[in-house]
Amino acid sequence: MGDDQLKWTELDRRTLFDARIFSVTNRVCLSPEGRREPFTVIETNDWVVVVPVLDGGEAFFMVRQWRHGSREISVEFPGGVIEARESPLEGAARELREETGCVAGKLTKLGVMSPNPAIMSNRVHFFLAEDITVAGDLQPDKDEFITAERISAAEVTRGVGSPPYIHALTATALCFYMRLNRQKV
Amino acid sequence: MGDDQLKWTELDRRTLFDARIFSVTNRVCLSPEGRREPFTVIETNDWVVVVPVLDGGEAFFMVRQWRHGSREISVEFPGGVIEARESPLEGAARELREETGCVAGKLTKLGVMSPNPAIMSNRVHFFLAEDITVAGDLQPDKDEFITAERISAAEVTRGVGSPPYIHALTATALCFYMRLNRQKV
Repeated sequence: MGDDQLKWTELDRRTLFDARIFSVTNRVCLSPEGRREPFTVIETNDWVVVVPVLDGGEAFFMVRQWRHGSREISVEFPGGVIEARESPLEGAARELREETGCVAGKLTKLGVMSPNPAIMSNRVHFFLAEDITVAGDLQPDKDEFITAERISAAEVTRGVGSPPYIHALTATALCFYMRLNRQKV
Repeated sequence: MGDDQLKWTELDRRTLFDARIFSVTNRVCLSPEGRREPFTVIETNDWVVVVPVLDGGEAFFMVRQWRHGSREISVEFPGGVIEARESPLEGAARELREETGCVAGKLTKLGVMSPNPAIMSNRVHFFLAEDITVAGDLQPDKDEFITAERISAAEVTRGVGSPPYIHALTATALCFYMRLNRQKV
């Protein structure tokens, strides 16, 4: 079966619910065999995740914070929502600065993925941050209580999949980093 | 700053919107410094992702399908929603059977993460599937048009972050697999 036999066509889209940070739409789509089906999709802005590398890859700069969805402490790579009129690269530099107080001499794109292509419309952009220097204090949003800390790459690699390394997109970013390191070696 | 100084307390929860596959709640929480803030959270069932290993790790069994959120073809590890009264392990075996037609002689837990701890309440459980045998035809849901195929581990590892390897949770699962292989070597 070719890709054309898997592809659906969108016929109609209607907003069902609108929150500040995302909206929910009903999309009526036509199946490859010509059947109409409704799908519920979460529409939101693109996100960015940054892997700040320290000490030549021996460690990362990570962010520790309370997460309201999972209701627990999460230690994760810095990241967030890309703002309007901001490129993914600019969003990466801003989130790094706000959440860790650092600036990167070099920001390299690692890849782009869909956080959940089944039910979410947006993409998440991954960047590697190198030549890190501390530029000042953290600048969290008013509802963020966060700390930033150096954690060894070995600990993060061992830890993903168990608290506090619970954020799937941190493991996605680590996958890119591991791939890069393999190619270097 | 200790974890106690990062922790919020939930005071109230109210459903704002209810879809078939998830609901949206408003959670009013008390900050570490005693301020009340509302947070919007997507509440949904836990998910499962399975890494079906073929030929001693040379290849994976992957699923190709149209995804309605990102509106493109995605090649990803089999997985889906864990049903009521089903354990994560049972969900893994069922999704593997439905989406690839295969059964696994051995299913091993790789880790548990939060797909997005900021705005989603649920967890995603990752399993390694070994000793794979083909048991019959695929059993897709009525709105699924999917194909299953053997793809070399090298191609998937090279490909994540570019179409059709766009699903972030496929890269999360690959991170677990790469970690496992490192430890073996």
